[in-house]
Amino acid sequence: MATEVHNGDKVNGGSKAVTFSALKPQLFVEAPKAADAVQFYKAAFGAEEGVRVMHPKRKADQELPLVLSAELKLGSSAFLVSDLTDDSSAPVKTVGSGTVFCLETDDVEAAVAKAVAAGAVSEGEIAEGEGACCGGRVGKVKDPYGIVWLICAPAKKCADAEA
Amino acid sequence: MATEVHNGDKVNGGSKAVTFSALKPQLFVEAPKAADAVQFYKAAFGAEEGVRVMHPKRKADQELPLVLSAELKLGSSAFLVSDLTDDSSAPVKTVGSGTVFCLETDDVEAAVAKAVAAGAVSEGEIAEGEGACCGGRVGKVKDPYGIVWLICAPAKKCADAEA
Repeated sequence: MATEVHNGDKVNGGSKAVTFSALKPQLFVEAPKAADAVQFYKAAFGAEEGVRVMHPKRKADQELPLVLSAELKLGSSAFLVSDLTDDSSAPVKTVGSGTVFCLETDDVEAAVAKAVAAGAVSEGEIAEGEGACCGGRVGKVKDPYGIVWLICAPAKKCADAEA
Repeated sequence: MATEVHNGDKVNGGSKAVTFSALKPQLFVEAPKAADAVQFYKAAFGAEEGVRVMHPKRKADQELPLVLSAELKLGSSAFLVSDLTDDSSAPVKTVGSGTVFCLETDDVEAAVAKAVAAGAVSEGEIAEGEGACCGGRVGKVKDPYGIVWLICAPAKKCADAEA
């Protein structure tokens, strides 16, 4: 068993100021229903559609291109809708209550380090992202309560599209 | 099978303007860990605590008072953390990936009607709420993708506490 350090102020990265600009829930639906779900949320809640990113890989037998992430805005908040794929790197493996939370920040490394120092478990390496974070860097941590958080630095093109 | 009407503009309630001020994910954790979870999110993400509402009912054999809803703010967003109880009216029955989404609006009836017109299923009656919505009125709908949405009109005391 590894020794865990739970005091965020005393470990590497933990004392660095980390701020998040937004929290966006990412809802996974059975593929290829994400496009339908986006239409539903627009009709049901008056959500306004923002950036939509399609899945870069497309199976030969797959008729519809899959939605990697479609952003919907509701008041001051936003959420993301995604097709659940069988991609092994997908943060959610089952449909339905599958939700992850995307936290946007400028410093992914420091944010992941602070979360780990507080007791979260880092999952995988920080990667150049695709999808939810509009191509920016993405780290993933699971908290002690089983909830998966993506820590993202949105790429420039995302910020532009939202401006 | 009941006939469903999917055009929100042509049914009762569907044509009324409905606006939401915010979307707040409500995360359920195994009771009584919500208080710990709040501390974790403050340490891990720098979340700032807002309104906390305790569970009004308390079992004799229950040592700790349960958290009905604790609000945490992150940037422009907010989320709620709650102890999962065995209350039959609880919107989530299992821990872990159990999440519901709270939508805040001034007109719960119109918002529920619009969602139902678009294809959601209303669950239960609109009730004078407790907990997540700070005592305001609460409606509940499940969307075609299995996700539960609480449609809430926060009570005055909530707005005051957040001001």
